[in-house]
Amino acid sequence: MKSDETVVTGVSGGADSLYLLFHLQQAGQPVIAAILDHQLRPESSREVAFVQEICVTYGVPCVAGKADVAALAQTRRCSIEEAARIARYEFLFGVARRHHAAAVATAHHADDQVETVLMHFLRGSGLEGLTGMRPRTILPQWDPEEKIPLIRPILNVSRTEIESWCRETRLTPVEDQSNQDTQFFRNRLRHKLIPLLEAEYSPQIRRHIQTLAQTAHEDMQIIHEVIDAAWQQCHIPDDRIPDAILLNRSEFSRLAPGVRARILRRCLFQLCPEARDVGFDSVQRMHDFIASCDNENSVRQWEKNLSVAVEADMILIYPGGESPNPLQYPQLTTGSVSLSIPGEFSFSGWQLTCRILQLSSEKIPALTTEMAANRSLVYLDWEKIELPLILRTANAGEMFRPLGSGGRQKLSDFWINTKIPRAYRAGHPLIADRNEPIWIPGLRPADFCRLTSETTKALRLELKKRR
Amino acid sequence: MKSDETVVTGVSGGADSLYLLFHLQQAGQPVIAAILDHQLRPESSREVAFVQEICVTYGVPCVAGKADVAALAQTRRCSIEEAARIARYEFLFGVARRHHAAAVATAHHADDQVETVLMHFLRGSGLEGLTGMRPRTILPQWDPEEKIPLIRPILNVSRTEIESWCRETRLTPVEDQSNQDTQFFRNRLRHKLIPLLEAEYSPQIRRHIQTLAQTAHEDMQIIHEVIDAAWQQCHIPDDRIPDAILLNRSEFSRLAPGVRARILRRCLFQLCPEARDVGFDSVQRMHDFIASCDNENSVRQWEKNLSVAVEADMILIYPGGESPNPLQYPQLTTGSVSLSIPGEFSFSGWQLTCRILQLSSEKIPALTTEMAANRSLVYLDWEKIELPLILRTANAGEMFRPLGSGGRQKLSDFWINTKIPRAYRAGHPLIADRNEPIWIPGLRPADFCRLTSETTKALRLELKKRR
Repeated sequence: MKSDETVVTGVSGGADSLYLLFHLQQAGQPVIAAILDHQLRPESSREVAFVQEICVTYGVPCVAGKADVAALAQTRRCSIEEAARIARYEFLFGVARRHHAAAVATAHHADDQVETVLMHFLRGSGLEGLTGMRPRTILPQWDPEEKIPLIRPILNVSRTEIESWCRETRLTPVEDQSNQDTQFFRNRLRHKLIPLLEAEYSPQIRRHIQTLAQTAHEDMQIIHEVIDAAWQQCHIPDDRIPDAILLNRSEFSRLAPGVRARILRRCLFQLCPEARDVGFDSVQRMHDFIASCDNENSVRQWEKNLSVAVEADMILIYPGGESPNPLQYPQLTTGSVSLSIPGEFSFSGWQLTCRILQLSSEKIPALTTEMAANRSLVYLDWEKIELPLILRTANAGEMFRPLGSGGRQKLSDFWINTKIPRAYRAGHPLIADRNEPIWIPGLRPADFCRLTSETTKALRLELKKRR
Repeated sequence: MKSDETVVTGVSGGADSLYLLFHLQQAGQPVIAAILDHQLRPESSREVAFVQEICVTYGVPCVAGKADVAALAQTRRCSIEEAARIARYEFLFGVARRHHAAAVATAHHADDQVETVLMHFLRGSGLEGLTGMRPRTILPQWDPEEKIPLIRPILNVSRTEIESWCRETRLTPVEDQSNQDTQFFRNRLRHKLIPLLEAEYSPQIRRHIQTLAQTAHEDMQIIHEVIDAAWQQCHIPDDRIPDAILLNRSEFSRLAPGVRARILRRCLFQLCPEARDVGFDSVQRMHDFIASCDNENSVRQWEKNLSVAVEADMILIYPGGESPNPLQYPQLTTGSVSLSIPGEFSFSGWQLTCRILQLSSEKIPALTTEMAANRSLVYLDWEKIELPLILRTANAGEMFRPLGSGGRQKLSDFWINTKIPRAYRAGHPLIADRNEPIWIPGLRPADFCRLTSETTKALRLELKKRR
C-alpha cells in the first residue's frame, strides 16, 4: 500500500481503534474512519457521536453506518457476535469500495494475536491455526475482486503500549463492557488464563506465542508451495465433472503421508468451502482407507455428503451417496449421433453396436436372463420403436419410462434413484427413438418397448468398453 | 522391528514401565528388562529388588545396573535430572548393544506427550517442538551407528488406562515421590495446569494436543524435504573449510523467507550442535542482515562465536571473530612451489610477482609508506634472505618473527592474533626462504629481513587477485 492511498479504518471508539486511527494519521496516510452502530446497546449511538466528534477535532473524514445486527443474526441463524462481525466487515468493505480505498485496516494488536493463537491451540488446531492473524490478508468473502486487502497495522503493538498512549494523550476511550465479561471464552483467556500462564508458567509467553505465529506462517507458506506442486502432479482436471475431483492414484500414493493428508483436505475444502471444521481424524481415516484399498474398486462415504471412490488408477471425490463404480459410467462428449442399424459407433473408450434379430417366442426367456446378467446389453421390441435411433445425453426436464416402474419419471430423478454421481449425469449416454429414451446403458431399458411374447423382431443394443 | 527381535525395556518399577513391560511380553515380543539404580534415594536399591522379583515371577530376563548420578552431574556440570537422564540412556543402549537387541523401549505415554508439547508451547517453540516425542527415533548420541532405535510403544496409551490396568492386575507399582513435587515444571503441568485447562477451557485438550503433535510431525517432514532440496541448491561444499559453511548468495536469496531462515538455522546447528536454544529472533536478525547487505562485503558476529560474512556472490558462516573480508584470504592448494627471481606464479585466482631492486637509502621512506598503504606488497632486504625462495603453507608448529614484534611466535598463534578465520589458516600461503617465513601475504613481513638504512638491494613481492 502506498503512503498516498486511502485506508478505511474501522473505529469503535475503543482504545485500540483510536490508537490505530491516530497512528495512521501521524504516519501521513490518508484515512477514512468508519463506524458502524450495531444497535445492540442503548449507548451505541452516543459512541458513534463520540467518534464523529473526535474525527472532527482531528480532521479525519468519518463515515457512520447502522446495522440491525439482531435481525441479521436471525436471518443468518448465527450468534449475535458472528452477525456483528459480518455486519462490520460488510460495512467496512462497502465504505472502502465507495471511496476507492486501497485497504481496510483493523485495530487487532499483539495481545489479540496471542489470544487468537492460544484459542486455536486450546480448541484444537494444526499449523494453520497457529499462524494467527496476518498483517495483510485478502478476504474474498468481503472483497470478491480481491483488490482491497485487510491490513492490521498495529499487530505488533501490545495492549500495554496502547493503554499508556491513551493515558499520555488524556483520551478516555469508549469501554465496551462486554470485554470484561468472562462468560466469553476470549475474555477468560485475556483476563484469567494468560495472566496465570505469565505469572506461573512462562513469563515470556506472549512473545513466544507471537514468534510461533510468525514461524508457523513461514512454515505454512513452505507447505503451501509443496502442496501446490503435489496438486499439479496428482490432480486430473476434468471439465465433465465440475462438482468432483479426480486424482491420479499412483501419483497420489507416491506423495509423503503428510502431503497426502493435506491434498485430501484441499479436496474437501474445494468441494465444500464450509468444511473447515472437519477434523484431523476424519482426513486421517480417509487417508488410511485409500491406502488400504487393493486393486478392487472401493467407495466410502466421507464428510459433508461426499463420497470417495478408489479405482485401480484413480481416486474420485464427488458429492452424493455411495456408488458401486462411478468411474466406469460411460460419458458421451461428442454430441448427438444418429445410429445406423445394423452398425457400430465408438466414443471415448466405449463401443455401441446395434443389430436386428428375428425372434421366436421360445427364445425370449433366454434373452431376458441374458439381459438380467449383463446390464450393458439389451433386447427391445423393434416394432415399438420409431426411427431415427439417436445416441445422445439427456435433455433438460426429459422424462423416461423405466422398465418395471409402470410410470414415467424425470431423468433427473432417475439419476438420483440409480445413484449416479452428479458428476456423471450430464454426460451419461442414452439411446432414444424419435420420441423418448429406449435405453439408459448400464442402467435400464424403457418399459414401452420391452420384449413380450408377441415380439418377433428385436433390436439388440450393446455398449462395451473397448479393449 | 520384527516380532522375534529382542527389545530392551527401561523399567523403573513405576506403573508406566510395568505396563510397557507386560504389554510387550503379552504381544510375544522378546524383552529384556533393564533397571538402573540411580542411587539418589535410600529406597532405590529396594526398588531394583522389586523389579527383579517381578521379572522372576513373569519370566522376563532382567539386567540391573548402578550409576553415581550425583558424581556425573558434577563432572558434566548439569542438573541431577539431566545427569540421571544421561546415565539412564547410556545404560539402556549399553545393555541393548551387549545383548544385540533391535531396539530400546521407553514407557512414554500419551499424557507424557501432551505435557511435552504443552511445555514446548509455553516455553517458546517452533513447529519442531510441537511434534513432541516420536514413536520411533534414532538418537546418534547414544547409538552412533544408528542401528538401535528408541521406540515408545505406548505413546498412544493414556495414564488413565495404565492406572486402571494396575488396579485390575492388583499391582502396586513403585511411586516416585518426586512425581508429586510441583516444584518441577512438568509436575505443575501434570497436576495443575492441564486439569485446569481441561475443566475450564477445553475438555478435549489432551486429544487436541496429541493430534497437533501428529500433524506437526507430518508438516515437519514436508519441511525437511524442502530444506534438504534448498540446501542442495545453495550450499557450496568446500573441503578447505571444514569448520565453516559456504552458501551461494544468489541461490540463497531466491529461496522463500521461511526456507532461508531454516537454512540459517541448519548452518547454526551444523557448526554448533549445542545451539538448539538459539531463538527465532537471532535467526531472524541474521536473515535481515543478509538481506540488507548490498554488494559491499559485510561481516557480522552471530551466536556461539560464529561470524557471517556476506560477499557479492557468497555467504560464509565461520567460527571466530569479526574479520574484514574472510573470503578474500588467498588459499594455496597446489603444494609448495620454488620461486624464480624475477618471476611470476599464479594459483587459484591469485598472482605472485617477485623482482629485485637496487636501492639508495633516500628511497626507503617512500617504499615503507607504500608498504603501509598496501598489505599485498612488500619490500625486503635481499641480503638477509637465503635462497631458495618457497611459496607454501605453514608447517605444523612453525615459528615466525613478525615485523615489529621483536620476537618469535608460533604461526598458529599468529593466525589467532591476526583474526584469520580458522577455515583459512591451513591453506593460507606464505613465502619462506631456506630457513623461515619472510612474508605472510596480506598480513606481515618478517622482522629479520626488513628494510634498513643499510639495504642496497630489495626483494619486491606482490600478491594480487587476478582480474
